[in-house]
Amino acid sequence: MKIALDAMGTDLNPVADVAGAVLAARDFPQDTILLVGDKAIIEAELQKHITDGLKIEIVHAPEAIHMGDKPNQIVRGKPSSSMHVGMKLLEDGQADAFVTAGNTGAALAIATTVAPRRIAGVKRPAITAVGELAGNLIVVVDVGANTDTKLEWLTQFAIMGDLYARKVLNIPDARVGLLSNGEEEGKGNQLVQEAGEAFKQLPIRFIGNVEPHDLFNGKVDVIVTDGYVGNILLKTYEATVSTLFKTMRAELTSSWWSRLGAAIVRPGLRKVVKQMDPTQYGGAPLLGLNGVVIITHGGSDATVIRNSIAQARRAVESNIIEAIRSGLAEPSNSAS
Amino acid sequence: MKIALDAMGTDLNPVADVAGAVLAARDFPQDTILLVGDKAIIEAELQKHITDGLKIEIVHAPEAIHMGDKPNQIVRGKPSSSMHVGMKLLEDGQADAFVTAGNTGAALAIATTVAPRRIAGVKRPAITAVGELAGNLIVVVDVGANTDTKLEWLTQFAIMGDLYARKVLNIPDARVGLLSNGEEEGKGNQLVQEAGEAFKQLPIRFIGNVEPHDLFNGKVDVIVTDGYVGNILLKTYEATVSTLFKTMRAELTSSWWSRLGAAIVRPGLRKVVKQMDPTQYGGAPLLGLNGVVIITHGGSDATVIRNSIAQARRAVESNIIEAIRSGLAEPSNSAS
Repeated sequence: MKIALDAMGTDLNPVADVAGAVLAARDFPQDTILLVGDKAIIEAELQKHITDGLKIEIVHAPEAIHMGDKPNQIVRGKPSSSMHVGMKLLEDGQADAFVTAGNTGAALAIATTVAPRRIAGVKRPAITAVGELAGNLIVVVDVGANTDTKLEWLTQFAIMGDLYARKVLNIPDARVGLLSNGEEEGKGNQLVQEAGEAFKQLPIRFIGNVEPHDLFNGKVDVIVTDGYVGNILLKTYEATVSTLFKTMRAELTSSWWSRLGAAIVRPGLRKVVKQMDPTQYGGAPLLGLNGVVIITHGGSDATVIRNSIAQARRAVESNIIEAIRSGLAEPSNSAS
Repeated sequence: MKIALDAMGTDLNPVADVAGAVLAARDFPQDTILLVGDKAIIEAELQKHITDGLKIEIVHAPEAIHMGDKPNQIVRGKPSSSMHVGMKLLEDGQADAFVTAGNTGAALAIATTVAPRRIAGVKRPAITAVGELAGNLIVVVDVGANTDTKLEWLTQFAIMGDLYARKVLNIPDARVGLLSNGEEEGKGNQLVQEAGEAFKQLPIRFIGNVEPHDLFNGKVDVIVTDGYVGNILLKTYEATVSTLFKTMRAELTSSWWSRLGAAIVRPGLRKVVKQMDPTQYGGAPLLGLNGVVIITHGGSDATVIRNSIAQARRAVESNIIEAIRSGLAEPSNSAS
């Protein structure tokens, strides 16, 4: 298997990207990691690592993406960026998956309009957050690829999210819930109410409406939502966790006595931080495309990059693209 | 001033409700607190307190609301509930404000359909979350009174939220932001994009789009949102905080050594819990009604009930109802 990795993706590229590739090449020695980006920069970075016997190759992509670049500028103005080149490797069959920590908007736009494009029949691709929260593996789809979601898009998200949970994450008989502002049937805005009816006709284990607290209690495996609301959900979660830890740090370092206590509980708090950080799991697949594409956040470290590559491998092994293709083609799914 | 309090509102009524009334009567000796509910039950509970010289009166409301009652059953089936009687006191001018910790859906429905009803011209009332988060006083409107919000409702929320911040919370020149999935102009779903244009015409200090992390950084005073999204925002926040503290408690009590550290940092952590608990501030006003109505959560303790009464007093003193009436009538507000 060949996994292409955007070497210029993270905020501090290529350091974490290349280090993550090395970790992955060590852990999965049968696979080849293709590092996509500026050849000279990648070669220089690779020399900091011991790479003897590792299957790492470089695919040159001369154009650099900068922090300030807008997605549109990248999509149209930089056809030789690492993201373009990486996505095209997928389309050409030279790579089985592409992983990037770069700009999400650009990744989505390139994937949809340049390569590998949507699976025939897919209305919209979805950003599918996958992660462990307080010990529960959970999938939330869509967390921001789309706003003003239509009913048919949402039913496709449900089918794709369900397939991903079952095939890639090995959650048999995954429970699929519909995000709403109340658990009772009929709660929600008009789209959610219509989806609640439509989901009953789908070949999924639909458990009805779920609420934000169900992110944490192990009651549901796949939460389906309009991308606008899903994005607010994700960002509220992230901002709350980060504010809480910041507030706590300030409080626990306010006196020598509390600093003493803080020193004792620090290892425990570190574990809590990890348990509340879903990004550790390794990236969000863009579902609905003609190839496995995983995006991960710009602040990813080598371990998260390695974990994202691991997730990409599982996605390829499970044949998820083919499963989505045939899953969406089944006649029972046209109910919506 | 006379403030009516639902004595049967909290989950453990009438204990916290009556205790909160006693605290408020002590702190605001010039005012009268009207305890609304079953007379015998309230009298028995009042005997546990020293009430000499306090201006507390009982208004009998014979019908009890039970945990399992649906909002509809309460609204239509229990016309003598403490909530109905309390809201009618407002309409009859026998009370200047009504505070309840009871069922939110029922409170909203009774307020809108029975008494005190909407101010003429108000399209929809809004649940307006008011609270301190990480040291910043913030208003979020609407957090759940409405789904499928229309543009005109949203512009009214902006005007009402702005007036509440300036008149009641004494935030001069309050900064009003529009919740979106990105700060750039043009981000958001269709409603948010249209609102971004419409808000520029309003007599408010509109600062553009804001994101969930702006809840915590003091950049904005009033966040305006569709009630469906606002409800998800609020619930995601609450669920995240509660899960994080639960995870932390489990981790910090996992060994004698960590329990020792936890004992030292406990006072600091308690402060953090308070700083992250916006409900301490005391309730959410229902804006757009012909009277001051504050709802507070069922788990409120006596202090929160007292704080809710304090907020109701400030709302009455500031003449907020009249301000909203004339604010919505101004010709410049018909731009939407």
